[in-house]
Formats: sequence, C-alpha cells, structure tokens
Amino acid sequence: MTAFSFLSHLVCPRSGLRYDADRIQQLSAVGAPLLAVYDLDALRDAVPRSALAGRTSTLWRWHELLPVRDPRHVVSLGEGGTPVLPLPRLGRALGIDALSMKDEGIVPTGSFKARGATVGVSRARELGVTALAMPTNGNAGAAWALYAARAGIHATIVMPRDAPSITRNEVAIAGAALYLVDGLISDAGKIVAHAVAERGLYDASTLKEPYRIEGKKTMGLELAEQFDWCLPDVILYPTGGGVGLIGLRKAFDELRALGWLDPARPLPRLVAVQASGCAPIVDAWTRRAPDSEFWAGSRTVAFGLNVPKALGDFLVLDALYATGGCAVAVDDDDLLAAQRDAARLEGTFVCPEGAALFAAARQLRETGWIRAGERVVALNTGAGIKYPETFIASPPLLQPGDGLPAD
Amino acid sequence: MTAFSFLSHLVCPRSGLRYDADRIQQLSAVGAPLLAVYDLDALRDAVPRSALAGRTSTLWRWHELLPVRDPRHVVSLGEGGTPVLPLPRLGRALGIDALSMKDEGIVPTGSFKARGATVGVSRARELGVTALAMPTNGNAGAAWALYAARAGIHATIVMPRDAPSITRNEVAIAGAALYLVDGLISDAGKIVAHAVAERGLYDASTLKEPYRIEGKKTMGLELAEQFDWCLPDVILYPTGGGVGLIGLRKAFDELRALGWLDPARPLPRLVAVQASGCAPIVDAWTRRAPDSEFWAGSRTVAFGLNVPKALGDFLVLDALYATGGCAVAVDDDDLLAAQRDAARLEGTFVCPEGAALFAAARQLRETGWIRAGERVVALNTGAGIKYPETFIASPPLLQPGDGLPAD
Repeated sequence: MTAFSFLSHLVCPRSGLRYDADRIQQLSAVGAPLLAVYDLDALRDAVPRSALAGRTSTLWRWHELLPVRDPRHVVSLGEGGTPVLPLPRLGRALGIDALSMKDEGIVPTGSFKARGATVGVSRARELGVTALAMPTNGNAGAAWALYAARAGIHATIVMPRDAPSITRNEVAIAGAALYLVDGLISDAGKIVAHAVAERGLYDASTLKEPYRIEGKKTMGLELAEQFDWCLPDVILYPTGGGVGLIGLRKAFDELRALGWLDPARPLPRLVAVQASGCAPIVDAWTRRAPDSEFWAGSRTVAFGLNVPKALGDFLVLDALYATGGCAVAVDDDDLLAAQRDAARLEGTFVCPEGAALFAAARQLRETGWIRAGERVVALNTGAGIKYPETFIASPPLLQPGDGLPAD
Repeated sequence: MTAFSFLSHLVCPRSGLRYDADRIQQLSAVGAPLLAVYDLDALRDAVPRSALAGRTSTLWRWHELLPVRDPRHVVSLGEGGTPVLPLPRLGRALGIDALSMKDEGIVPTGSFKARGATVGVSRARELGVTALAMPTNGNAGAAWALYAARAGIHATIVMPRDAPSITRNEVAIAGAALYLVDGLISDAGKIVAHAVAERGLYDASTLKEPYRIEGKKTMGLELAEQFDWCLPDVILYPTGGGVGLIGLRKAFDELRALGWLDPARPLPRLVAVQASGCAPIVDAWTRRAPDSEFWAGSRTVAFGLNVPKALGDFLVLDALYATGGCAVAVDDDDLLAAQRDAARLEGTFVCPEGAALFAAARQLRETGWIRAGERVVALNTGAGIKYPETFIASPPLLQPGDGLPAD
C-alpha cells in the first residue's frame, strides 16, 4: 500500500544538516527554520499526477507532499481548494489583461492562515504535542487556536493590542489562553519565547516549527493544477513573515522534481509586496542583500504586513532572486483605494494585505516590469470582513414609511 | 450539444399557472413566489449522474438544474462546494453520534447568501436587468451588492440599523446605494416596494424574484452527492425567510424525479429552527396551520432569524409536513452557549443562526424526536466572524518584556 505521506526528514537550510522528522523539532542548531524533505523519487514512481482526480478538494488532496503520516491525525475544517477568479475589469484599469486572484478569503477563519494551521496542528498532534504557544498579528493565532481546539491541544496566544479585534474573539471562543501586548508582534514573540522556555510548550511561532510552511505550500500546488501545470508569469504575494512565498517556491521546486511541472519552463517571478510603513524585504531586495534589517517604528493599516524582521527573510529574498522576482512597497492610501476598486469593479471584498497587491501591480505595470500580455496572479490572503475598520460606511438613516431620497 | 440549462418555465405554487421564464417576472398574479421548473425528462435522458465527476467544485457544477442559459452570463466568485464536517465531540455532548455540519461560512461574503446571489444576479443579468433593489437583514444585501457589482448591475439596499455592521461595509464598498431604517426588515421591505413601484427597479426581495431559491437549492444537491446519494435522516436549518429550506426540498424532489436519488427512500426530516423571540413558523407548525402569523415585537441576537412573517411561509410549512419534520424555537442564551461549545469542542466559529441548530438538536434528542443512531446534519449558514458582537473577549494586557501570568 502506498504511504499517506512521503516525508523523509528535515533539513537546515543554513547548515545543510539533516534532522529527524519524527520527533518534535523547533529551530536548527544554528537558529534557522527547518524545512521538510520528501522522498520525491519514491513518490514519482508510486503516484502519477492523474491520481489527484476525484480526490477531496481540500488541501489534503496533496497528502503525499504533506507531513502527516496517518490520516487519522488530520485535523481539518474543510480548508483549501480556493478559486482563481478572473478580474477583467480591474485588470483593464491596471493595464493587465490577464489578471486573476486566488482568493484565500474563502477558507475557515477567513484567512490563508488556516492552511498552515491545519497542517501544523495535525502534525503536532501526530507527534504528541498537548500544549502550544505562539505570537501573532491576529489571523494566525485565530486559526491555530481553532484548529488546536479541534485537535484537543491547549493553545496560548499573544497578539498586539492593535491586531484586528475580531481575531481576539476567535481565539477566546476557541478556549485558548489569550494575551494582548502593548507593542508589536516582535514584543509578543519575546513573551512567547520566555513562556516556551519556562513551561516546555511547543513553539508554534512562524517558522519555529517546520510544518506551517507545508500547509502554505499547498497554495502553490493548487495554482499549478488550476493553471493546468503551466504556471502564470508573475505571482504577487503580500509579505509579512513571508512563509507563503517560501512555500510557493518550495511547491514549485517539488513539482518540478516530480516531473509534474516542466523543469524547462521558467518559474513565475515572485513578487513580495509590503507596506511603505514596514518594508524590510523591499529594503534588502533593493540592496541585493541576503538578509533584511529590523524595521524600526513600523506602522501600516495592513496589519499582517507589520513584521519588522522575519525569521525566514533570507529564504524570501532567495526566492525573489532565484525567480527573477522583485519587492515592492505600497502606501496605505493606495492599498485602501485598491481595496475599494476591487470591490466596486469585481465584487470582491479583499483584506488590506490583499489589496496591496493591486496597488503594487499598478506600479509594476507602469514601470514596465510587468509586461503587456503577461499572466499575473494576486494571492489575496484573506477576507475584507475581518477588517471592518478599514472601510467605514456612513449610510443615511430612514424612518419606517419614508421613501428613498432622490439619487 | 446538450443545453447548459434545462429550465422550462415558472409556476405559481398557489394557482398552478405557468409563467414564461425568459422574461423578467416577480410575484405571480395572486402574489405568490414563482418557482422554476426544469425539463427533467430531457435532462434524465441527456445527462447521467456520473457527468458531475471532474466538474468545477463551485455550485455551477449543477448548471443543468440552474436557470442561466448561457455560461457567459454566470457571475461567480467561487461559491459552493462547502464541506460537511463531522462533529464527534459536540455530537457526544448532545447524544448524537452521527452529527455533522455543512459549513456555509466558507463562501464569498462568509454567508450562504452568496448562493442565492450568484444565481439570482447571473439570471438577472441574462434577462437584461441593470438596477435592482432589496431589503435585507444584512448578509443577503452584502452578497447581492457584491455580485451585482461584479455583474455591472446597480444595487439599492435597505437594512435595519441593527443589522450586523460589517454587512454595511460590504454593501457600501461594493458601490451600492445603502440605506438604514430605524425598524425591522419588514419596514425595509415596504420602503423597497415603494421604490420598486416608483422607479421600475428589479425587486430582488426574498422570493419576489424566482432565482435566489435556485441558488439555495444547491445546498441540497451538494448534500445528496456528499452523502453518496443516500441522504441523512434529519437536516436542521435556521429559518428566517426559509428560502434554503424550501430549496432543500426542491433539490431532493428534482433529484428523485431524475432517478439520482432513490424515490423509495424517505426524505430527510427537515427541521425549521427559529429563535424564541421570533418564531412564527414554530407557532404555525404547532397549530398545524398552513400559513404563519406576523410575529409582533420580534427580537433575537440571531439577526438572520428576525423575520416576523416570511413570504414563503406556506412552502416552508409544507416542506415540514411533507417530510415528517418539525419546528423548534431556541432561547438566545442557549444558542450563544451552543456557539461557544462548537468553537471549544470542534474548532468551528459558527454564526448565531447556525449555533441555534445545536441548541435545537439538544432539545430534539432529549425529547427523543431525534432517535439514537440517526444521522443528523446541521446547516450552518455563516461565519461567526461576521458577528463580532455576539462574543466579546476580555484578554489581559501585557507590557513588552512582561512574562505570562501564572495559569
């Protein structure tokens, strides 16, 4: 019988050393994120691409390329299989005829964080974890708290007081221990690190456990299948911690190694989109640096982008350099305008982080970096309904029996 | 070539008279909702059930049973194909081992209203509508405003001032004309009726156009396929306007007529769940009446259930009587407690209307109406994140550098 997972081992991308995947691991000995490695040779022989037909439309259709060994450990709320929506009217407004959006707002918890949570929590359960902790800008904490509840794992979540308030409710209603901090996610991270050391909790911080990225990777796997194994020219990704972008590249590399993608075709140029008020990756990319610098005084309405220094910055930057991509910063005013444009022209209410992609696309088309006729995909990471404060309606109030005012 | 749609005509369920489906229609001459009728004999001959394999996972996989004749008129945001999630721990707590939930929170706009909107707006566009109006308790207006924007149709939306505030933002950002009314949805309905008469708008009010119900019907089509054409014993549905419940029955009737469901097997017993503060269907069902009475002074935290008198009440009640179903009222305190239980035990943050189903299931199991071993499906109509006011978290605030307080 074919294995459910073809997970082989973990590797440190700094040192190249191997780590055992079947025990709990956090960072490598040199403080780098560990990455999951699969036995792709065995998988190539055992499973043809055509085996996907008729499987679940959730991301668990990719189970051979995911780290959970026993399907009974899968903790799922029906996540993944998100649509790629053509955006013809917005595309025309931006001068990009073949613009589309993969909409990660249509998942449990309304944000792409559900992908990392379903895989990360499932694997944590499989490895015997009973209590985890994490800092968050809101959405990841919400997803992990809810999936942990479904798994029977106790979660401790610390988020900035300014994080989207609805994510507090999600964490608290899940029964997790929730704390706010009068600071940034980096301050929350220090509090969690201390608690992890003191109490022996599983550290579910971004990239401090190896499996969240495997969930995010499925966005790339799905794109490959949805584009009929012929990927678009450019993929725009809103980059805070950058795990999704690292995951996209990992997905494409694995599919190439399997022969499911043609290795002779160039990979999509990956674009890291950040807010002008917190753009460490853009700064590093501009200098062609391998790592980013801590961004002091960071501030943006796109709260998920407020990550002053990402642990995986070197992997994000490497993905940009390797694919001929770039990094772009967007002003808050421009991303909020783009959010309105997307709703008015295409009927989609995206989150501020997702809206930043359209503002970035406009810049890149104007400079010619995006060429006429190129196929461009924006990866919207969440639903606008999670951010009620970014667009306030002020409708007129009528009394019963009133007529509508004249237009 | 097989037709994209097998729509034949419309019928008035009060008079039995036929109406032309290929022109704009609202209510029948006797003021009843018009229902779409398909040429099921032709469909049975032309399309086998197996044709579904490999189609889109959106609700448009059912296009032969939907009213849009030309696929170019489809206005889609990737809606439908929602998961059926097993709820083993909550089920044990309720004494229902085979409890599951179809989760309509995982759709564009975060509520099942997207189903009605995608089909209703698509067909309106096909028939040449350029401006529509509707009253709403929030979610339907949000969905119709966004889909109308995608279709290039102008929308006018009137909602109670107490409707969930996030739905205002959705309507307004879509570019629709939004008005609040200091009253109930019935007051909003009168304002819309007046504007429709005066300005010649398309009236998209619940059941005043024939196609929203066709979108809702797809929940039943999907359930049939997801349960491998052997439906569960009981389906619980939160009933405001009741369109989904009418749609479920219509779906099952059509699938039986096609031979895709075994006509010898009984249909699921349909359960209309309402709030104690607005329970006109429960009242009518208790009296075995064919119609409901206007519920004065209605009030409930489950805002979508605040419909004092539904236009389709007679169809809802007929579906309950025909399937051996029932109607149950739930107190606000009980549905809010059930909302917390579902999150804590199963990791799913459902809307208050959906939570009411679990409180109702507890009642029905305790009375023995739901029998041991029966397969029970709760149809959760939306995401809890759209109702931030129903659960308020009060987490402790830490300063940077603080440790976590002792548990």
